[in-house]
Amino acid sequence: MDYKAILDEIKPTAEEEKKVREVSEKLLDFINDKCSQDNIDAEAVLVGSVAKGTYLRGKSDIDLFIAFPLSCDKSYLKDTGLDLAHECCRAFNVKPYHQFASHPYVTTEIENFKIDFVPCYRINDGSQIKSAVDRTILHTIFVQANLSDSQKDEVLLLKRFMDMTETYGSEFKVGGFAGYLCELLIIEYGTFENTLRQAADWQFGHVIDLKGYGTAKKFKDPLVCIDPTDKNRNVGAALRLDKFSQFIQSARNFLNSDKKDEYFYPLAKELDKDSVLNEFKDRKSNLIAIKFNIPQIPLDTLHPQLKKTSESFKRILNSNDFLVFQTGYWTDEIDTAIILIELAVFELNDIKVHHGPRVFFKEGCSNFIEKFGFENCYILDDYIVSNVKREFTTPEAFIRHLITPDYISLIKVGKNLNKPLLKSYEICDINDLANDDEFLAFLDDFLYPNQHIRR
Amino acid sequence: MDYKAILDEIKPTAEEEKKVREVSEKLLDFINDKCSQDNIDAEAVLVGSVAKGTYLRGKSDIDLFIAFPLSCDKSYLKDTGLDLAHECCRAFNVKPYHQFASHPYVTTEIENFKIDFVPCYRINDGSQIKSAVDRTILHTIFVQANLSDSQKDEVLLLKRFMDMTETYGSEFKVGGFAGYLCELLIIEYGTFENTLRQAADWQFGHVIDLKGYGTAKKFKDPLVCIDPTDKNRNVGAALRLDKFSQFIQSARNFLNSDKKDEYFYPLAKELDKDSVLNEFKDRKSNLIAIKFNIPQIPLDTLHPQLKKTSESFKRILNSNDFLVFQTGYWTDEIDTAIILIELAVFELNDIKVHHGPRVFFKEGCSNFIEKFGFENCYILDDYIVSNVKREFTTPEAFIRHLITPDYISLIKVGKNLNKPLLKSYEICDINDLANDDEFLAFLDDFLYPNQHIRR
Repeated sequence: MDYKAILDEIKPTAEEEKKVREVSEKLLDFINDKCSQDNIDAEAVLVGSVAKGTYLRGKSDIDLFIAFPLSCDKSYLKDTGLDLAHECCRAFNVKPYHQFASHPYVTTEIENFKIDFVPCYRINDGSQIKSAVDRTILHTIFVQANLSDSQKDEVLLLKRFMDMTETYGSEFKVGGFAGYLCELLIIEYGTFENTLRQAADWQFGHVIDLKGYGTAKKFKDPLVCIDPTDKNRNVGAALRLDKFSQFIQSARNFLNSDKKDEYFYPLAKELDKDSVLNEFKDRKSNLIAIKFNIPQIPLDTLHPQLKKTSESFKRILNSNDFLVFQTGYWTDEIDTAIILIELAVFELNDIKVHHGPRVFFKEGCSNFIEKFGFENCYILDDYIVSNVKREFTTPEAFIRHLITPDYISLIKVGKNLNKPLLKSYEICDINDLANDDEFLAFLDDFLYPNQHIRR
Repeated sequence: MDYKAILDEIKPTAEEEKKVREVSEKLLDFINDKCSQDNIDAEAVLVGSVAKGTYLRGKSDIDLFIAFPLSCDKSYLKDTGLDLAHECCRAFNVKPYHQFASHPYVTTEIENFKIDFVPCYRINDGSQIKSAVDRTILHTIFVQANLSDSQKDEVLLLKRFMDMTETYGSEFKVGGFAGYLCELLIIEYGTFENTLRQAADWQFGHVIDLKGYGTAKKFKDPLVCIDPTDKNRNVGAALRLDKFSQFIQSARNFLNSDKKDEYFYPLAKELDKDSVLNEFKDRKSNLIAIKFNIPQIPLDTLHPQLKKTSESFKRILNSNDFLVFQTGYWTDEIDTAIILIELAVFELNDIKVHHGPRVFFKEGCSNFIEKFGFENCYILDDYIVSNVKREFTTPEAFIRHLITPDYISLIKVGKNLNKPLLKSYEICDINDLANDDEFLAFLDDFLYPNQHIRR
């Protein structure tokens, strides 16, 4: 296929390129001048997709790293780095925002560009890193040195394809492919199309080792891509098995498709509340929506905790005879999350077998009989058991029981969600929730999981 | 406790003893005279509980074995043995019935005694056996030589206790303790009460080896009782784990009871159809009764096949998301059997996940997509899957589907039941079936499993 039309839409315009270069240079110059004025041994470096020329149109975030020598201590680096960022913001008359990843940094917005100021150490080799961000400069240098201009277009096609099939982004919300990983894939495979042809045949644990370090055996991940700048790091470590698998299948779908260009645009789908809700009705499923407030925590903390909580509900419901079809979660990332549980059952009978010890444990059997009553105990195979009334015959009653201070520990709730869940949860009618367009889109994805890998 | 009152009721009366001795001797004399007249090298021997003096009142079945030398061939033994039995029946003017266990034999009834005529080989050691019945004479001799008169009473108490707690009888219907095993237990432990005290502490694989053969390690059964007449045979081989376990618990229940004498009489319980059916209603269970005709096959073939079929229904329903609480079966042993299934669920939702191959099998995924449709396939973890409509949302519909020629092989139906089930099954209303008193008793046992181990 001819990718020119696609590239015409996704490549930054000449104007955007010029503008981002100008702004970046102004910022670099300001900080580097300041450093020499104040005798600070540090250097501002442009990194990330802008520095590498691999950013999609409209996604020109400027990542400015302020690199200190390895000899200076962490608190000096942090204080001085953040000071420089603040002074830069003051000079450009914008408001700085503090961010705390594993590492503190400052963000702001200048002339519609999102800017990150990140203090780091200047290292020559991945093994020297003192903080997780230190490798970024090496990554930038490696890509600048190894990616040809025409390959930059291939990276753009790959990123766009992944974005539209929902496998792009290494943040926990997605668990997909990082930008740097896309660049390494193109360096390995040459073109977007060849990357997809190769990916269509990937097996679990596929190895990409551009520098031939031979260290892949250390990793058990679905995709092992040895970092050219650090032989002990897998660039694919954050790629989840499901996203790895979805990318493989979306590559096959694309290669077999006669509507290839559609894979570079959002799924054309008109959502309608009634048809979404009708599909749930057709399934005759029991749908339970648990809505609660979320705390102010980083998204990379929030999403894994929501995922864990949702999966834990599935596990505990299943192991208590309430057969779950699927669970999922949605959040506005501001103040609300909803865990959605789709069950195969509405109500169970009122009796179940409670197992005691095997009959050969005489003392244990005696205690069991004392507890459950002589008349109620019998032998099933070689266990002493008792029929007991189910405490809960509906999943909703069981869920309400679980979300109480004494029993919430039975669900593996993310640690920051425990209290908000207890305090604020309510079980909502899906008909009301579906009035929110974003939630409606979530419901549609819940009905048709990873529909974005198909066109 | 004082067992005299119990023994007064369960020991044969003097009259019964005299009568059974007289009849036995007349039969033995007739056959042995006949043998010497006709120059047949065979000898009639009285075996079993009558010969050993360990039969309960009213249970004086006369077991007459006709023993041939090891040198004669099987067909001669069979023809001559059955001829002798026939002539004996003719002489006593009663009708002979042919029976086929692993070995053919003749039964009849004389003066209200059930008589078995069984041709066998005369052996001196268990290792010489040519047919399964040959050991019986050795068993009789061993017990006669090793069980004292007072111990015979202990055997009676043990048999009666087991009978009333439903653990007595090695036939497949029960899977409990054989009479010979009871006798060996008393030889090992001396008294009924000591047997129960010891049994209360039995562990899985408990070994009784009266002759110290040291061959117990060959067996993996719950109870290993080495046959004193054959070191390579476990007398406990037919004892099922559940019956072994029930006996252990009934022993404990008895020893802790202040109503010990009640363990020697049937459970005092007035059955009432309404209260039995109300208990099922209270449980809110989904009860399905599958009634069908049974073929004319030995009970030791029928019962294992019914048990297997019932357990197979449980397994296949559970693995198809229809959660089973318990299954059981009842038969009149004449022409009808009923499999009863108690489920926790009435209806499921209308959708389930159908798993295809893992995504790494490219060809398999492609076939899966072709079969289930491109639009319906998605990735779950690292599998290609498709949501499919459940073919059956109720257990009854699924059961009716299973009992059809194309699908019955999914249930592990006993081989003699396959055709009758297909041809004659109907799903019945439990309210109608419960009008039969025997079936009502089964329902009550189904509601309160092994209730007989308690008083």
